[in-house]
Amino acid sequence: MGVKKVVVAPESGFCYGVQRAMDMVERALRNGQKIALLGPIIHNPIVIKQLEMQGARIIEKVSEAKDDEIVFIRSHGVPPDIYEEIKKRNLRYIDATCPFVARAQRIVREMSQKNFQVVIIGKKHHPEVVGLRGYAKDPVVVTEPFEVEKLSLKNKIAVVVQTTFRKDVFEECLKKMMEKKFEEIHIFNTRCFTTDRRQEEVKKLSKYADMVIVIGGKMSSNTRRLYEIARKYGKKAYHIEDIPDIEKEWFKGVEVVGICAGASTPFWLVEKVVKWIKKEVKGNAGEYTVTNV
Amino acid sequence: MGVKKVVVAPESGFCYGVQRAMDMVERALRNGQKIALLGPIIHNPIVIKQLEMQGARIIEKVSEAKDDEIVFIRSHGVPPDIYEEIKKRNLRYIDATCPFVARAQRIVREMSQKNFQVVIIGKKHHPEVVGLRGYAKDPVVVTEPFEVEKLSLKNKIAVVVQTTFRKDVFEECLKKMMEKKFEEIHIFNTRCFTTDRRQEEVKKLSKYADMVIVIGGKMSSNTRRLYEIARKYGKKAYHIEDIPDIEKEWFKGVEVVGICAGASTPFWLVEKVVKWIKKEVKGNAGEYTVTNV
Repeated sequence: MGVKKVVVAPESGFCYGVQRAMDMVERALRNGQKIALLGPIIHNPIVIKQLEMQGARIIEKVSEAKDDEIVFIRSHGVPPDIYEEIKKRNLRYIDATCPFVARAQRIVREMSQKNFQVVIIGKKHHPEVVGLRGYAKDPVVVTEPFEVEKLSLKNKIAVVVQTTFRKDVFEECLKKMMEKKFEEIHIFNTRCFTTDRRQEEVKKLSKYADMVIVIGGKMSSNTRRLYEIARKYGKKAYHIEDIPDIEKEWFKGVEVVGICAGASTPFWLVEKVVKWIKKEVKGNAGEYTVTNV
Repeated sequence: MGVKKVVVAPESGFCYGVQRAMDMVERALRNGQKIALLGPIIHNPIVIKQLEMQGARIIEKVSEAKDDEIVFIRSHGVPPDIYEEIKKRNLRYIDATCPFVARAQRIVREMSQKNFQVVIIGKKHHPEVVGLRGYAKDPVVVTEPFEVEKLSLKNKIAVVVQTTFRKDVFEECLKKMMEKKFEEIHIFNTRCFTTDRRQEEVKKLSKYADMVIVIGGKMSSNTRRLYEIARKYGKKAYHIEDIPDIEKEWFKGVEVVGICAGASTPFWLVEKVVKWIKKEVKGNAGEYTVTNV
């Protein structure tokens, strides 16, 4: 007995937008630039610590930035007044807004200018949603389907969704929207397709493996979502941030270990966990495979 | 005992689009013009007979029109190739397409030109839907919610609905659409609001009255829909085209008679029915009221 196989979900690790932002900040730091990260670049404490060690500094407001610092806008994006504040202070900035988020921002601005009532489906305090709201006049944010019922909306409605929002809840919200009175409703599915793929993979992996380890920040909503799916469809599931969170107990009677990671988890951390299992857990894990099950 | 009250639903009689078309054809006939009605102007045999007596002629195809006739396009609208045929033959024509239908046609054409996949929710062979289809490239027509499931659609979808389509079925179809994969879906609620108002009134009237008489052509889908509602929500309901269809038996034990009429029923026919009841049916119907109940 013991672990015979470790399977890593192929979409594990940084999504496109986060990878892009990471590349941008690391390039800037290598060039010796002083970077003020406007909010943590990703929900991963390990990565944030590394960036800080390389000289980046986290700020909460533009007003905290020093005159010689470059303000770094993370992949989540920011509302337009942040750009105005940056320009007013004559600060330099790097805009790492994820292109998928930027598309949603553009849609919100355009539809609002055309006098559509903008409805954003997403978590009210998620930085991406806070950003999106800034591009509309009187936008409405909906997180749960039941909230749709109470809304009083204009005749012309435009709907966008947080890029990392749950597909099933999004669908339920839309169905509730169909019960509203409207003349026109334009729905833009701004969810990022990598979120779907990642979730699909974890679902399959959970059914296949004896246990699933989800790696990612405890604050990361997309990682938590993966953990929820793994718990729902799998036999056992654990959510860890790093090696010290792992308990050897978990591996009792486990032959196949599934591993996946949130969009804000660097792939080297996934590799570190795999190596740890091969070394510390009894069994013959052999080579790990990054594969679709 | 006997009939004490006759209540007529306020929205009874021609809808805006039909009234407009009737005015247009009657004006032309009064001016001595030769009119070739491209399809019966409304689903009401009595009205059609009257128009024929005034000199109008019903044709099925443009090719049947004589050179000195004016082709009359009814409120349902026609596909664009009909206009081309008319122009090719150098015929004169009167376009009585209902403005609500014309709006839907415009939307279908524009969205199709923008490469949206057009989905029309409506009855496949209804003249309005046949017309609408002509304005799109590869449109899809959906009549029942279950049909949505089988559809394979493009990423960008535009939805319109037959102006007189059932609200509840429309809503169910839209909900099914929300389960499809899409990037953008733009839904235009092209249902005519008078259809809703008419149906709401009949629902209320059916609950209030002891019996409801629905007046309108047996072929008229909106009249049939009113009859369905009256049967569902009321105690007794009958669908008549004219006085001879009425049976005195029906009025036994009835104190309050509700009367409504489809969009293709002239109001004088409603008045004729009310007069008949007052004269022929025992009781004291008193003055009839056109009122919301």
